[in-house]
Amino acid sequence: MVSEKSVNNTATQHTTQPSLDSLIDLVDADMKRVNQVIIDNMHSDVALIPQLASHLVAAGGKRMRPMLTLASARLCGYEEGDSAVNMAACVEFIHTATLLHDDVVDESLLRRGQESANALFGNEASVLVGDFLFARSFVLMVKNGSLKVLDILARASAVIAEGEVMQLSTANDMATTEQAYLDVIMAKTAALFGAASHIGAVIAGRPEDEELALRDYGLHLGTAFQLIDDVLDYSAHQATLGKTVGDDFRDGKVTLPVIIAYANGDEDEKAFWRRCMEDQDFRDGDLDHAQSLIRKYNTLEATMNRAREYGQLAIDDLAGFPDGPIKNAMIEAVEFCISRPY
Amino acid sequence: MVSEKSVNNTATQHTTQPSLDSLIDLVDADMKRVNQVIIDNMHSDVALIPQLASHLVAAGGKRMRPMLTLASARLCGYEEGDSAVNMAACVEFIHTATLLHDDVVDESLLRRGQESANALFGNEASVLVGDFLFARSFVLMVKNGSLKVLDILARASAVIAEGEVMQLSTANDMATTEQAYLDVIMAKTAALFGAASHIGAVIAGRPEDEELALRDYGLHLGTAFQLIDDVLDYSAHQATLGKTVGDDFRDGKVTLPVIIAYANGDEDEKAFWRRCMEDQDFRDGDLDHAQSLIRKYNTLEATMNRAREYGQLAIDDLAGFPDGPIKNAMIEAVEFCISRPY
Repeated sequence: MVSEKSVNNTATQHTTQPSLDSLIDLVDADMKRVNQVIIDNMHSDVALIPQLASHLVAAGGKRMRPMLTLASARLCGYEEGDSAVNMAACVEFIHTATLLHDDVVDESLLRRGQESANALFGNEASVLVGDFLFARSFVLMVKNGSLKVLDILARASAVIAEGEVMQLSTANDMATTEQAYLDVIMAKTAALFGAASHIGAVIAGRPEDEELALRDYGLHLGTAFQLIDDVLDYSAHQATLGKTVGDDFRDGKVTLPVIIAYANGDEDEKAFWRRCMEDQDFRDGDLDHAQSLIRKYNTLEATMNRAREYGQLAIDDLAGFPDGPIKNAMIEAVEFCISRPY
Repeated sequence: MVSEKSVNNTATQHTTQPSLDSLIDLVDADMKRVNQVIIDNMHSDVALIPQLASHLVAAGGKRMRPMLTLASARLCGYEEGDSAVNMAACVEFIHTATLLHDDVVDESLLRRGQESANALFGNEASVLVGDFLFARSFVLMVKNGSLKVLDILARASAVIAEGEVMQLSTANDMATTEQAYLDVIMAKTAALFGAASHIGAVIAGRPEDEELALRDYGLHLGTAFQLIDDVLDYSAHQATLGKTVGDDFRDGKVTLPVIIAYANGDEDEKAFWRRCMEDQDFRDGDLDHAQSLIRKYNTLEATMNRAREYGQLAIDDLAGFPDGPIKNAMIEAVEFCISRPY
């Protein structure tokens, strides 16, 4: 799955599929502390809050974003201290808050293969516990005392919300351009990846060029990550992992696989996409037909190629940093994001 | 409406009903700047965000909270500079974000006598624009550079969310005690009033005893304010102002007027409250019957007496500050909150 170019540039030859294992191993001890910080800071005497929050913690997820903060700080020579652990926890809090609100917005009943919080606890609790986690992350940031980190994460939070609103505006609109789609995913997903790695350099007290290189690494990685997410939503393989396929289709989210299929489609095919995505008028077999059009125009492969391009940019962003196990793990994380089956 | 005691203590004899006019006049120039800061900071290239946000600004409201920040700073001798104006805008942003999320949680169709944002723009946009405003308020706080103000407002934001979740937990539960009710309103309403006046002292660089006195003033005022809000929800006079009456009743929110009526009720009356509030099984004439029980036990008057007690505490909190027009206006604001018809 990884392009020749990136493999040659980085000299990380994988005989097996790239995985997150190297990254996970490197930050394992710190991630245990991150989990503890998360548990400590979601405490509330209002029982429903830790109940709902621990449902989310138990559901897990890849924890890519806090790992990025820890790895970036390490890549910048940061070794000891609580800042990276605490700020990684803040990043995960912000991510969790946005997931809670996302599921309300999307009316999702599943999250990471399990019943979503809104399905279990109701929309009201999901909105409010999201607000609570978001506020608590700022309390924790203030304790840490870096106005620069606060600035980066507050701005990223505003951009994420903007991206989600943009996504609402482009939903059900087949006139959505590839650029508008990229703007959405940069804002709703890549911004937090970028902020997560950016603050790693800030915490380590590195010069601005390293800060910006790591910010860009996160932005590019996050863009690749979301492109693959949007591929997986149409991938038959998802179904074998107990995940739903076609959520984006049913929600009328106009993602790149659809944009390309629509651009290449004949009049009948265009009318089909408009009926489904714009009018939300679904008939039996529509998802199968959508998938067949996506295969006909190879749009998943085209979208994966875009992801590979962004992945290569992310790898290039690391060029100025010292070679070693951390850099290799961060490169493999990019390769994993592009080739991941889930 | 104002007790003899407070009038004697404060020497503010009103021949007319107390109003917010003195406070409004005193901070008028600054509030114009607050409005401009709000407009500037809700800007986004994503058109739906300023659209929805300006709907909220146009809807107005009393703007009590930002006025408290401005007045508290002035009472502490703060005269010039942007901090008070900017932080007052942050307070209003946080308040607006919580209103947006509240309306989603309550499924309210009206807010301040107008169609609510969720009714006009949908729940999704209300959740996300709330998040955006909340994040932007933190960006603005960071720009201002006071970690102490950030800490106070971040903690208040977490407490508000806790209060709202507590309210969900006590809704539809006639076993709710007066203390549980007071805990809810302290958290969901009084905390932001307290933070708003607290940061006034912080911005003015005053010693801790003045900070805490102003924080307590806000907490007590906010508690009185919410008690009266809960009275007004059952007040026939509300209807003449174009507001809905009985929202809390229909939502099964167990507020003090109901708690007292329930405690005093006979078995039939208790069963009535449980059927309505717990089972949400409503029949024709139920709101009228609820209002007649509330009249029977004088529970609006009892609730107003609690509000007067908290109002008196708020006035007492100002005792150590210099007499003058600002203090008088802050005292009259308390009296207004207690006697307000809207």
